[in-house]
Amino acid sequence: MENFDQLLDKYANLLIEKGINVEKGDNVMIYIAVDQAPLAHYLAKHAYENGARRVHFTWKDDFTNRLNYEYQATEDLAEVADYTVARQEDLILNQKISRLSIVSGDPDLLNGIDPSKIDTVQTSHGTALKVVRTATMNDRVKWTVAAAADYGWAKHVFPELAEDKQAATDALWDAIFKASRVYEADPVEAWNNHRDLLDEKAKFLNDKQFKKLHYTAPGTDFTVGLPENHIWMSAQSFNPDGSPFIANMPTEEVFTAPDTNVMDGYVTSTKPLSYAGSTIEGIKVTFADGKIVDVTADKGAQIMKDLVFNNEGAQGLGEVALVPHKSPISQSNLTFFNTLFDENASNHIAIGAAYPTTVQGGTEMSDEELQAAGVNRSHVHVDFMIGSDKMDIDAIDADGNIFPIFRQGEWAF
Amino acid sequence: MENFDQLLDKYANLLIEKGINVEKGDNVMIYIAVDQAPLAHYLAKHAYENGARRVHFTWKDDFTNRLNYEYQATEDLAEVADYTVARQEDLILNQKISRLSIVSGDPDLLNGIDPSKIDTVQTSHGTALKVVRTATMNDRVKWTVAAAADYGWAKHVFPELAEDKQAATDALWDAIFKASRVYEADPVEAWNNHRDLLDEKAKFLNDKQFKKLHYTAPGTDFTVGLPENHIWMSAQSFNPDGSPFIANMPTEEVFTAPDTNVMDGYVTSTKPLSYAGSTIEGIKVTFADGKIVDVTADKGAQIMKDLVFNNEGAQGLGEVALVPHKSPISQSNLTFFNTLFDENASNHIAIGAAYPTTVQGGTEMSDEELQAAGVNRSHVHVDFMIGSDKMDIDAIDADGNIFPIFRQGEWAF
Repeated sequence: MENFDQLLDKYANLLIEKGINVEKGDNVMIYIAVDQAPLAHYLAKHAYENGARRVHFTWKDDFTNRLNYEYQATEDLAEVADYTVARQEDLILNQKISRLSIVSGDPDLLNGIDPSKIDTVQTSHGTALKVVRTATMNDRVKWTVAAAADYGWAKHVFPELAEDKQAATDALWDAIFKASRVYEADPVEAWNNHRDLLDEKAKFLNDKQFKKLHYTAPGTDFTVGLPENHIWMSAQSFNPDGSPFIANMPTEEVFTAPDTNVMDGYVTSTKPLSYAGSTIEGIKVTFADGKIVDVTADKGAQIMKDLVFNNEGAQGLGEVALVPHKSPISQSNLTFFNTLFDENASNHIAIGAAYPTTVQGGTEMSDEELQAAGVNRSHVHVDFMIGSDKMDIDAIDADGNIFPIFRQGEWAF
Repeated sequence: MENFDQLLDKYANLLIEKGINVEKGDNVMIYIAVDQAPLAHYLAKHAYENGARRVHFTWKDDFTNRLNYEYQATEDLAEVADYTVARQEDLILNQKISRLSIVSGDPDLLNGIDPSKIDTVQTSHGTALKVVRTATMNDRVKWTVAAAADYGWAKHVFPELAEDKQAATDALWDAIFKASRVYEADPVEAWNNHRDLLDEKAKFLNDKQFKKLHYTAPGTDFTVGLPENHIWMSAQSFNPDGSPFIANMPTEEVFTAPDTNVMDGYVTSTKPLSYAGSTIEGIKVTFADGKIVDVTADKGAQIMKDLVFNNEGAQGLGEVALVPHKSPISQSNLTFFNTLFDENASNHIAIGAAYPTTVQGGTEMSDEELQAAGVNRSHVHVDFMIGSDKMDIDAIDADGNIFPIFRQGEWAF
């Protein structure tokens, strides 16, 4: 790829400047794979140049992660030491650490590993490290999730290039750079404009304060409530000091919390879901009396059942997100097997916890108060995609009036 | 390099099988640079295949390490959190973790950084993580230090290849594989034979129980005592359960503790010392009344002065090691700018702590008892090289008889 180093530098600058928005004195934690060291180096350089006080790294490695699952006993792998919790508490509560997660790697990494082992390990870590989840979901620290390309991932997105490692990896970098607006002359300015457009949609919906959404599409007929004083959010978030950041890069969505007590009908997934190191396809979720009562899938069904029925709060929903079918990522016609991208090509909903930021005063509420307000609590949050060019969505207001929100997969207002 | 993958696999197997000797149920920690992931993967695979319970990694990264020194305040960089100490204590005391350190990287990484900043940071970490040092120096856990090649290091060893990254890196791998006997048909068997040869020298010296050594060479005229019941050690060590391991790969030395109270004269270094991210050359150390009273150096003098005069116990010596000038590493005529190699090409001594394993009952003694026995205590241990083909060493026994130990840099018995 021509000018790859310059593009990587530009991308790193965008993530540091506009993503987590590193400011003077910030502590920064970067989660990144060992084979992404070139990107890591640009990120560290830009973070320090922006005045970071400390830049920490948590290095990930797919190959040894898979070996750990293959060889370690479940209880060893699931164990979270007190000092690990203490460290995360210090980073979050004292250092107010800005968290940049770079996702990469083979979406099928853990294929063939016992799903209940994966579930036990993820549940244990999710529960023990609640402080991290709480901080990000409440925007108590600045945080960004972005992506990096590698062959293990690229061969799924570009199967026709699977024989040529370099070509496949370059094609995925190209797709990431496009979706993240890195090719723009001034990517930061391009993101400001994009943010403003999404904000307009969110403002319209916030002013309306609809009571319910009704989704229809082949395989989907689903009604979901919206809590009182819900807030539709878009690209930009703010930490408690009022510093802006972009939590997902790319992002094309406008989203809020559903009222988890008001859910009826069924939905069918329209894109593969990459979760817990496996690809799950053809998910059908049935709701009754305000909770998920059944889950099936053409592939990976057991992982979905474990997710929904073995985790507290996972029979509830935590997010409804609106993304036009003609979003730039959707227009690429690629399936990324990665939620960060696939959710931004499609309307989606999330199993598990809602963001307390999506209701007025939510970040000041206890878990009990949030749950009472219909804002679901859980230690999991897993998005899956239900949008298509055949999806219509109606909104229903307090007086029973119906407003078309989406028609044939596109904004209707 | 032809068959590089097979050689790397063979090397990893040697380090796991013969180096730290991973046995069923062992917990393993591997310290390795992110750009050595291919070696890391082979190491993890062999460790698990040998029955390891858990394999942890501590990933290192030169580039961001240097940025940390450039941008972070000394007190931030020197800080060691309680939970970091707690983790090391758990790994060492509870998990009895086997430690494999893979050294690599540019020996001049920290060139230009204020030496007192480096010293403050290293002293702070060394003091806080005493549990790790104590465990390894007493062989309470199995541990191995070995090497991996990268361009940042290779360009110093092969300056004539500095323009060709791949050629320089390959040349260094070749030198590492040679010194580690990886090209042998059965490297494990080759190491068994090598260990037996070194054991013979150690046995002779142990039976003699000399009182003093007297070194002479250009720039060196130095007399040092040996403590009562000292033990000359060689390649193989044993953990408290009697499991053997090889602490250094390569190793060509036979070594023991000096009596730190009996040191007189002066020594001059014969090879560069890579320490604290800098290369130090032309070191001259003067002893009087059983301690170092002066240190000069042609290059990096301040780092040496800080080491000796700012660290408790660093005016004492912790090791005298005998290595024939014609050792295989010496015969390569290469200067590695890395102590693991350069110390095994040359007689050397170490500033700082002695290994309690080098006196009878030493691992059961308190720091005070060791110090009283002449076995130096400190939180530093830095070897530097004084051997050459012009070095003679005499041993002096309890009756004042003189035995030639080395003549013209070679064993004299």
